[in-house]
Amino acid sequence: SRCGYPEVIYCEGKTSTALVEIFTLLLESKQRCLGTRISEEQAETVLKQFPQAIYNQVARTIRIPEKDAAFDEELTKGKITVLTAGTSDRPVAEEAMETLIWMGYEPDLIVDVGVAGPHRLIEQLPRIQNVSAIIVAAGMEGALPSVVGGWVSCPVIAVPTSVGYGASLGGLTALLGMLNSCAANVTVVNINAGFKAGFIAGLIADQQRSSSES
Amino acid sequence: SRCGYPEVIYCEGKTSTALVEIFTLLLESKQRCLGTRISEEQAETVLKQFPQAIYNQVARTIRIPEKDAAFDEELTKGKITVLTAGTSDRPVAEEAMETLIWMGYEPDLIVDVGVAGPHRLIEQLPRIQNVSAIIVAAGMEGALPSVVGGWVSCPVIAVPTSVGYGASLGGLTALLGMLNSCAANVTVVNINAGFKAGFIAGLIADQQRSSSES
Amino acid sequence: SRCGYPEVIYCEGKTSTALVEIFTLLLESKQRCLGTRISEEQAETVLKQFPQAIYNQVARTIRIPEKDAAFDEELTKGKITVLTAGTSDRPVAEEAMETLIWMGYEPDLIVDVGVAGPHRLIEQLPRIQNVSAIIVAAGMEGALPSVVGGWVSCPVIAVPTSVGYGASLGGLTALLGMLNSCAANVTVVNINAGFKAGFIAGLIADQQRSSSES
Amino acid sequence: SRCGYPEVIYCEGKTSTALVEIFTLLLESKQRCLGTRISEEQAETVLKQFPQAIYNQVARTIRIPEKDAAFDEELTKGKITVLTAGTSDRPVAEEAMETLIWMGYEPDLIVDVGVAGPHRLIEQLPRIQNVSAIIVAAGMEGALPSVVGGWVSCPVIAVPTSVGYGASLGGLTALLGMLNSCAANVTVVNINAGFKAGFIAGLIADQQRSSSES
Amino acid sequence: SRCGYPEVIYCEGKTSTALVEIFTLLLESKQRCLGTRISEEQAETVLKQFPQAIYNQVARTIRIPEKDAAFDEELTKGKITVLTAGTSDRPVAEEAMETLIWMGYEPDLIVDVGVAGPHRLIEQLPRIQNVSAIIVAAGMEGALPSVVGGWVSCPVIAVPTSVGYGASLGGLTALLGMLNSCAANVTVVNINAGFKAGFIAGLIADQQRSSSES
Amino acid sequence: SRCGYPEVIYCEGKTSTALVEIFTLLLESKQRCLGTRISEEQAETVLKQFPQAIYNQVARTIRIPEKDAAFDEELTKGKITVLTAGTSDRPVAEEAMETLIWMGYEPDLIVDVGVAGPHRLIEQLPRIQNVSAIIVAAGMEGALPSVVGGWVSCPVIAVPTSVGYGASLGGLTALLGMLNSCAANVTVVNINAGFKAGFIAGLIADQQRSSSES
Amino acid sequence: SRCGYPEVIYCEGKTSTALVEIFTLLLESKQRCLGTRISEEQAETVLKQFPQAIYNQVARTIRIPEKDAAFDEELTKGKITVLTAGTSDRPVAEEAMETLIWMGYEPDLIVDVGVAGPHRLIEQLPRIQNVSAIIVAAGMEGALPSVVGGWVSCPVIAVPTSVGYGASLGGLTALLGMLNSCAANVTVVNINAGFKAGFIAGLIADQQRSSSES
Amino acid sequence: SRCGYPEVIYCEGKTSTALVEIFTLLLESKQRCLGTRISEEQAETVLKQFPQAIYNQVARTIRIPEKDAAFDEELTKGKITVLTAGTSDRPVAEEAMETLIWMGYEPDLIVDVGVAGPHRLIEQLPRIQNVSAIIVAAGMEGALPSVVGGWVSCPVIAVPTSVGYGASLGGLTALLGMLNSCAANVTVVNINAGFKAGFIAGLIADQQRSSSES
Ligand SMILES: Nc1ncnc2c1ncn2[C@@H]1O[C@H](COP(=O)(O)O)[C@@H](O)[C@H]1O
Ligand SMILES: Nc1ncnc2c1ncn2[C@@H]1O[C@H](COP(=O)(O)O)[C@@H](O)[C@H]1O
Ligand SMILES: Nc1ncnc2c1ncn2[C@@H]1O[C@H](COP(=O)(O)O)[C@@H](O)[C@H]1O
Ligand SMILES: Nc1ncnc2c1ncn2[C@@H]1O[C@H](COP(=O)(O)O)[C@@H](O)[C@H]1O
Ligand SMILES: [Mg+2]
Ligand SMILES: [Mg+2]
Ligand SMILES: [Mg+2]
Ligand SMILES: [Mg+2]
Ligand SMILES: [Mg+2]
Ligand SMILES: [Mg+2]
Ligand SMILES: [Mg+2]
Ligand SMILES: [Mg+2]
Repeated sequence: SRCGYPEVIYCEGKTSTALVEIFTLLLESKQRCLGTRISEEQAETVLKQFPQAIYNQVARTIRIPEKDAAFDEELTKGKITVLTAGTSDRPVAEEAMETLIWMGYEPDLIVDVGVAGPHRLIEQLPRIQNVSAIIVAAGMEGALPSVVGGWVSCPVIAVPTSVGYGASLGGLTALLGMLNSCAANVTVVNINAGFKAGFIAGLIADQQRSSSES
Repeated sequence: SRCGYPEVIYCEGKTSTALVEIFTLLLESKQRCLGTRISEEQAETVLKQFPQAIYNQVARTIRIPEKDAAFDEELTKGKITVLTAGTSDRPVAEEAMETLIWMGYEPDLIVDVGVAGPHRLIEQLPRIQNVSAIIVAAGMEGALPSVVGGWVSCPVIAVPTSVGYGASLGGLTALLGMLNSCAANVTVVNINAGFKAGFIAGLIADQQRSSSES
Repeated sequence: SRCGYPEVIYCEGKTSTALVEIFTLLLESKQRCLGTRISEEQAETVLKQFPQAIYNQVARTIRIPEKDAAFDEELTKGKITVLTAGTSDRPVAEEAMETLIWMGYEPDLIVDVGVAGPHRLIEQLPRIQNVSAIIVAAGMEGALPSVVGGWVSCPVIAVPTSVGYGASLGGLTALLGMLNSCAANVTVVNINAGFKAGFIAGLIADQQRSSSES
Repeated sequence: SRCGYPEVIYCEGKTSTALVEIFTLLLESKQRCLGTRISEEQAETVLKQFPQAIYNQVARTIRIPEKDAAFDEELTKGKITVLTAGTSDRPVAEEAMETLIWMGYEPDLIVDVGVAGPHRLIEQLPRIQNVSAIIVAAGMEGALPSVVGGWVSCPVIAVPTSVGYGASLGGLTALLGMLNSCAANVTVVNINAGFKAGFIAGLIADQQRSSSES
Repeated sequence: SRCGYPEVIYCEGKTSTALVEIFTLLLESKQRCLGTRISEEQAETVLKQFPQAIYNQVARTIRIPEKDAAFDEELTKGKITVLTAGTSDRPVAEEAMETLIWMGYEPDLIVDVGVAGPHRLIEQLPRIQNVSAIIVAAGMEGALPSVVGGWVSCPVIAVPTSVGYGASLGGLTALLGMLNSCAANVTVVNINAGFKAGFIAGLIADQQRSSSES
Repeated sequence: SRCGYPEVIYCEGKTSTALVEIFTLLLESKQRCLGTRISEEQAETVLKQFPQAIYNQVARTIRIPEKDAAFDEELTKGKITVLTAGTSDRPVAEEAMETLIWMGYEPDLIVDVGVAGPHRLIEQLPRIQNVSAIIVAAGMEGALPSVVGGWVSCPVIAVPTSVGYGASLGGLTALLGMLNSCAANVTVVNINAGFKAGFIAGLIADQQRSSSES
Repeated sequence: SRCGYPEVIYCEGKTSTALVEIFTLLLESKQRCLGTRISEEQAETVLKQFPQAIYNQVARTIRIPEKDAAFDEELTKGKITVLTAGTSDRPVAEEAMETLIWMGYEPDLIVDVGVAGPHRLIEQLPRIQNVSAIIVAAGMEGALPSVVGGWVSCPVIAVPTSVGYGASLGGLTALLGMLNSCAANVTVVNINAGFKAGFIAGLIADQQRSSSES
Repeated sequence: SRCGYPEVIYCEGKTSTALVEIFTLLLESKQRCLGTRISEEQAETVLKQFPQAIYNQVARTIRIPEKDAAFDEELTKGKITVLTAGTSDRPVAEEAMETLIWMGYEPDLIVDVGVAGPHRLIEQLPRIQNVSAIIVAAGMEGALPSVVGGWVSCPVIAVPTSVGYGASLGGLTALLGMLNSCAANVTVVNINAGFKAGFIAGLIADQQRSSSES
């Protein structure tokens, strides 16, 4: 197990049979499973085999608890907020959310607070100013992480999305913008990498959870 | 004369003698002169010949009034605001300012209101919400025009600057970001093109000036 | 409401049900609606609910008047001209046109006056030399805005289109060309961004409309 | 103050006089100062005014303690390790180190453990496996963060450097590689952005410091 | 025949009939055939005509022995190892394998030893440290060839794959990374060019085979 | 001799001594010499040795007639016109001119007829409508070749220049624009490649010269 | 009519009805028609209306003679050769061929003489050394035009094709290579622009045809 | 020691003192030294300390034999040929040569056999058709490796150089071309990476040397 967490399965390009085999092995070794980039077709096969699995169609993820206990029993709250600039960025945000739930966190989600409607973010400030880490998913010009970074004092994980057209270059413009953020607390992951954003946010929150546990 | 305004001289790569010749011709035909991208050395020669010229070292511009009257006699106020994200964007803003003065406008200038310090812009809102056009110069991720666009109801001329390093790609990142602005009232000019931003802002304000004049 | 106009709905990636809901809300708050990038399928559902809606298949837009009155009742004429270089640029031009009609303007449209047939533009000069703003949609090398900019004295909103092949790079070549226009009155929006071009042209014309109104 | 820390001064393009003024103001408001990207010439002027300042020529930084007390009095140890792939990546690492010292941390530094000499990193594993955050500076192909990410269970802040030639594209190749890291715990900042890497690593360690303090 | 080997047929874009014709000609001139980038449909037609052909669906290759003898009769062993970073890189590895078998080699294959799981590669070191050439197929950040290069003393042929998303740019990121490898024994071929990697590895091993034969 | 013409010497990076040696050899074999991209320093040395040489500082070329006869004795007139968009494009145009004189042509030169001042080109139409080939040098958006192509019926050799700033990308924008010209008679050479433009224009005119000679 | 030739119709994106209308108009004004980038479906409709039309499925072109006379009656021979590097470049070559036939030329075609099989080109030298212009279509690295340019003394029109994969970047690599040709007689058109290559080659040959006619 | 060879020192960015220290250490451990990318200034200091060192100003390398014996005493001949397309590619070729001498080989060098002068290469064929590996250094369009690859049956190491201007993009065009070579025996290293090309060629020749030794 890496980083104290079991390996996550990137489902794209794997056969459904292969997925069932991998998940069976992981469950046998007492690990809670997470699969990302799963197609509807793949999910169907996996769900047949593991009816307790939780499939999120928007996030394109599947989670399987290692035992009969529900997944969400003892989630840690209040540590992480996930923001999106527009409603189209939601799938990436959901992938981050699912990753965090799998890590034992209950993230807070705020959708459609992009910079062109400045009042919306300002109204939500209380929900982002006392957390361990914030994930911001944004496409097009990707300006939201900088703006959020200016209002908070924790790390901001910026995840560019491929939302946009023309000179958005499939998310490259948002990516480049986020890397050049004038806010010092912004760090960046790959385009549409909701999983990575969630995983790193979880690791950051772990710093506090583990220290408060010990 | 194009657009009702005399031709502007792009000084880069012209000899000082050539510049003096061109300005002499323009003044003889009763035109107020503007030179952009002028070097200190070129400016010196021009100033010797035309002591009434106004040289702006930061903007790298020179203005010569067509007669003895001062340039700023009857400037139109209150129509255009120029904003910069950082202090390093000032040269581009100054080029836009000089262009506007040459067009007969007295622009308002607000420096260093970048998105990482959100309170600064909010404090200045009264100065940007009743004008005909706003110019926003920003480098790095170029997020400021989107944010400004969200607060105002006039056209925002976004001018990306080459301020930044690494993945700022000499201003390309800011340029791409601005083109993908989620604010519908943002339009874009070339990197460091303070002259163009100023000229277009002036043409927009002209719509009202000329109509109120008639 | 932003810029004095209601929010415009970007339909791509939204369900038809979601669109109907949003439009219902907007109409209830007495706003005239505009949807862009709407698919035939989405349009059909919307039209069933709002038979008074005006769907433009080429522009991929839908407009819904806020009351029974027709949309075009009191359109302001003679302010804005939309030009295209080729016939293939028409969808982008139409999106700009629809946006302007929604803003209360009746734009003039001139198609297929690209630079390779120079007489065609020259014949149309009277239709472009007395307006508040001109929109020029062009793909391939995107040269038309510069040429138009040389003949007129108002702002030219250049909108690059993805028309072309090979080194046209999906519109990037036209975009870059327009940003480097040697005409000082040319400003640029994103590739295929007919909506933005229309919106900014409308805001420019508003300068005069509002001042002549007051 | 942003993120609980005072503003950091980006010295590039500012006059020495301007720097002295800014630092005077910050010190008057009882803030410890950090200046980055400072030139030798600028540093000299600042040092004349504030002899207690600590200038790091390799890092191109200057730190000024807010009172007579030395800077390093009560540094928090054992939380953060800074790694470099080669010796040429050192300036970027030093910038991160200086930022961390200014934040009250004493980072551990390991130089020249690039992937082409695999034994070197393996020998250093004990120094990287019990920290809160790791910074990895690497140029050329930028492979080191992925390799480090595979050995540890904390967040890895990858900072690409412009070290290399030809297809290293001034650091873009390393940047792109890091963004595509197959290790899930790797997040990325801009090319040569030692300051940002340091700041974010500090914020991550703060999660634990503040929680263990409370 | 080039390089002592018959010409290899790139099947993409050729009709099935054309392929049968070409293979017939080659077999008549007593050459063992290799076709690459063959589709399932093309393969079916070829197999009908030459039932002795060996079609590899994953590699998208077809081999036809020049006479009745099986292909693998007298393969040279122990000279070449093919590695992949992930399981998704397998098709590219298989194309290299098939090319090598066609050249008379029996390559060793090791799958899924990417850098994020460092123990996996270390366990396989004995299988890569006594060969003539190593092929490494990797997508995403393409770090594996550098790491392998650090452990061995033979040439490493790095073949970037298009595995990944977002900033992996269809394999360009892996390609650029490999070209900038800090390991001196790494050389590079085109994205997904399993055939080329195999061919060059074979030519390298030929140096020894031919010299030991003579 | 290639193409019926002697080899042209690309002087960049050659020592002055080497240049003198090469020119001596060429003259001994009775060839008229052309050197391109020659520096002032190199030119001085060459001129000392061959006082009959004609050095063009703007074009950065040197021509040496093979015997005492002047170079321009029997130049063919009226076949080729060289146009520039701006005055800054002149060096590239001059390199083309010098190449053509060396090939025995007397080209016609028209400077500063860029598209932003449309009357200027129209006034010059008689000078471009009866020639064998036209060379058009333009930077920035590179629109002039398309416009010229629309007025004439001979091949137009477009040569992009590096004139411009920001998104002109050192001439790439002009290059891409010219390649996408909507005029069918436009063909393109490398950025600043005045020599190549001249050489190809000369070869085209040769078609007629040689046929009318025979 | 441009360049003495009627306008050519780019069929992509036009309705079949629109095509029939345009061709009817052209034929009424006594012009021989050429349509490029025509789909099978469009071609079918056009052929129904004009059974005398000549549809080339590989070239994706359609030609309609202006009267009953066959197209090829009085074609000028021996002036132009079209070469391809591989068999996959044939469609682009065919588009050039069709354009030339429409201009009244009978081009010579030589397929699959790419640089990796050097003997093939050398055998064909007699067919390329006495023509007015040569068109070379090549994908992948696009080296053939340089090699051809070294053997001949007429202009070489290089047309890059999108044949290739990975770092061929859809033809950009071939395009860039051709622009940097070390052969001085190579000029370049857009990727896959067979029509343009043919048209320019025809215009070059026209220089001689018209002069020998007069 | 990597690959059986001592570590090579990349001198760029190291102080002269540091270089002397490193070389002293290497010599003490009985290793023959190679330094690359050494400046004239650095070389002077090193030469003062180690008068037996061999400095190659063109290659920017320095070699120091481990004992008094001359370097070239027992060089292996006839295995490797180094080719350049133009004379300007020589520095890169020399770096490869020096690397090979340091590895114990005496490479053969052939300069200026670029594709635009096809006879030159053909005359040299005997010198390239019986070796273990060929290095080809070429800038501009980088076509030479493909052409060479077509004539020989050993691996061709292509090394792109930054020779060229405009669209040569500092060597990227040559690099991309070489990666797309239609010759199957071509593999590629970084731009200007003469050292790497030499090292890999040496490792290939080692296959035969070591096997013939054993
Ligand atoms: N959506 C994702 N994006 C990036 N990496 C992922 C994703 N999902 C899983 N991974 C990583 O991919 C690796 C598994 O890849 P594989 O061996 O192909 O299943 C694990 O190390 C995960 O950390
Ligand atoms: N800083 C500038 N950026 C872009 N265009 C400019 C600038 N200054 C002047 N121009 C334009 O450049 C043209 C003059 O160029 P030139 O003929 O080279 O002097 C005029 O049309 C101006 O509109
Ligand atoms: N998968 C491949 N990738 C790159 N080159 C290939 C591949 N398969 C065959 N080739 C080369 O392509 C050439 C044949 O191309 P063609 O004439 O189009 O069949 C031969 O020279 C082969 O060396
Ligand atoms: N300015 C130039 N741009 C491009 N190619 C040139 C130029 N001047 C000379 N050449 C070509 O460069 C080759 C000579 O290169 P070299 O062997 O380095 O002297 C000749 O084939 C010329 O055709
Ligand atoms: Mg929204
Ligand atoms: Mg500031
Ligand atoms: Mg048209
Ligand atoms: Mg090292
Ligand atoms: Mg794996
Ligand atoms: Mg001019
Ligand atoms: Mg072939
Ligand atoms: Mg040469």
